[in-house]
Amino acid sequence: MTPITVAVDAMGGDFGPSVVVPAALQVLEQYPDLHLILVGDQARLETLLHEHAGEAPARIKVQHASQSVAMDESPATALRQKKDSSMRVAINLVQQGNAAACVSAGNTGALMATARFVLKTLPGIDRPAIISSFPVETGGCVRLLDLGANVDSTPAHLVQFAIMGSVMVSEMDGLEAPRVCLLNIGHEDIKGNELVRESAKLLSVTRGIHYAGYIEGDEIYQGGADVIVCDGFVGNVALKTMEGVALLIKKLLKQEFGRSWMTRLAASVSLPVLKAVARWLDPDRYNGATFIGLKGIVVKSHGRASVKAFVRALTEARFQAEKNIPQCISHRVELLLKQSASDGAQLT
Amino acid sequence: MTPITVAVDAMGGDFGPSVVVPAALQVLEQYPDLHLILVGDQARLETLLHEHAGEAPARIKVQHASQSVAMDESPATALRQKKDSSMRVAINLVQQGNAAACVSAGNTGALMATARFVLKTLPGIDRPAIISSFPVETGGCVRLLDLGANVDSTPAHLVQFAIMGSVMVSEMDGLEAPRVCLLNIGHEDIKGNELVRESAKLLSVTRGIHYAGYIEGDEIYQGGADVIVCDGFVGNVALKTMEGVALLIKKLLKQEFGRSWMTRLAASVSLPVLKAVARWLDPDRYNGATFIGLKGIVVKSHGRASVKAFVRALTEARFQAEKNIPQCISHRVELLLKQSASDGAQLT
Repeated sequence: MTPITVAVDAMGGDFGPSVVVPAALQVLEQYPDLHLILVGDQARLETLLHEHAGEAPARIKVQHASQSVAMDESPATALRQKKDSSMRVAINLVQQGNAAACVSAGNTGALMATARFVLKTLPGIDRPAIISSFPVETGGCVRLLDLGANVDSTPAHLVQFAIMGSVMVSEMDGLEAPRVCLLNIGHEDIKGNELVRESAKLLSVTRGIHYAGYIEGDEIYQGGADVIVCDGFVGNVALKTMEGVALLIKKLLKQEFGRSWMTRLAASVSLPVLKAVARWLDPDRYNGATFIGLKGIVVKSHGRASVKAFVRALTEARFQAEKNIPQCISHRVELLLKQSASDGAQLT
Repeated sequence: MTPITVAVDAMGGDFGPSVVVPAALQVLEQYPDLHLILVGDQARLETLLHEHAGEAPARIKVQHASQSVAMDESPATALRQKKDSSMRVAINLVQQGNAAACVSAGNTGALMATARFVLKTLPGIDRPAIISSFPVETGGCVRLLDLGANVDSTPAHLVQFAIMGSVMVSEMDGLEAPRVCLLNIGHEDIKGNELVRESAKLLSVTRGIHYAGYIEGDEIYQGGADVIVCDGFVGNVALKTMEGVALLIKKLLKQEFGRSWMTRLAASVSLPVLKAVARWLDPDRYNGATFIGLKGIVVKSHGRASVKAFVRALTEARFQAEKNIPQCISHRVELLLKQSASDGAQLT
């Protein structure tokens, strides 16, 4: 059993160590090969570990960091003035080879800027992207990227996203030829904006990608794609819109079930059903977006993640480390670059 | 009581006259000032009118059209080869001044191409946009545009959309200074793509617009905006994503409530609540997207609209005709063009 070490920004997110510490203890019980380095306020972390576990388990190390990045801090400030932040130190551990991955629930912009600066992008990849999983009706999941790291993407960027997404799904979900679709506003060739149409042309001649055509917003959950690629602006709008509708329906159900004693009775009778639906939609089950395209694994947890959700992000990081996703991407890109050089085509 | 005449493409949509005829009869009962011209296969329409109403009401006229546009026909073919289609004739009636508005459930691309060709855009407006209403949590609704007519919009286009949306909300919903927001992926000035940031700069100095800043996808339903402006690609993705999530949750509820006799019992007890939520989300209540920016009113119904939904689209057309929305937009744009000429600023 090869040990896998994950560095954790223990001060990040809305709840910091009070979520990170119990999540760390839980995930260690599930994976005997997992080691964690909790980075942050040493005294506080040790106190919390003591409170939760008596003695800190052998597979948890605490590494002190004197600063932390605020949730509303600008990426530039975090990068320049927070060189000893828990976030920065956790990423440094990956860069130095002391951890195979890092996880943070902190400020997304600061995390991306710091990760890019410290780890750098993989050869052949211009920009890292944000990728995450969503459940689909047919079972399993679909991975969508970019969820907001890159606005104003070019067709070459979208092709790179497609390659990265495809490699990730192959490795993580064991699919041989993941179906890669482009998010568009129709299915016909003429539909969409210039970015999408040009990307479609490139993708249809990119080797090693099973390009499966356009997909529309209402089909994201239908199971027709394994990877969905789009510009980060569009992907972020889609992501937030999904969250907004799900939240709206939740509120409406709560409001209508709370209207009278009769409806409250109906609610109590329907509770198992409502819980099953909520569990299916529960974003915690899919917590952990990955900054893909970097020379290292960086998993971003929701800022408001619960213990359960943070465990999920840690698990995601562990599996990516086990599969060594950055290296897999690097190999694939190298191969494609060689092939396209011999084809005379352009990858970037 | 000034009569208002609406022309109806009676052959459009998945169900054609079998939905249009009963909807026409229903809406006439609601609005004594409303007159309808049903355009399509005269014999079929007269038979259906006879079946539903005995004698056709005095306020319904039937105008024969020898062709119809198929739902999957290309806009170019419809425009060139279907000069006597029910869709084209209905739009012609608006252009000739014989109807104040037209409604079609037909092929969106063909309807837009034909409407643009026949009616032309208003002075000062480069491109028509698609605008529609969505319910918000706080009651009332928000109007979102563009929902897919324009991909690759420029900042000047987004400003034009903002003006048109603002005028429409002022006139239709009686708001004096509707809050106009730009759909973005964050609230800070630096967030978003170039299009959004440039549009924000322009909007903040456009007179007569109450520009209220950025809004994110999860806030669409929260009631913080009266008009939300975005590029048509983004708007269409957001719209379809909303539909997809709502449909998914509907399917999940059905699946979970159908699992056993116990859950089916819970479903029957909860039926009034589930119906109330479904009613709230029901897209039929908001059926009728408007092609705004043309020299005439064109309302597009969902292709699969029910009778109730088609009544709603007819009602929307009637109200826009009563308010003469195209003229209101024209006046506002003229005023703004004069002001910006004296300011030295640029509207287009």
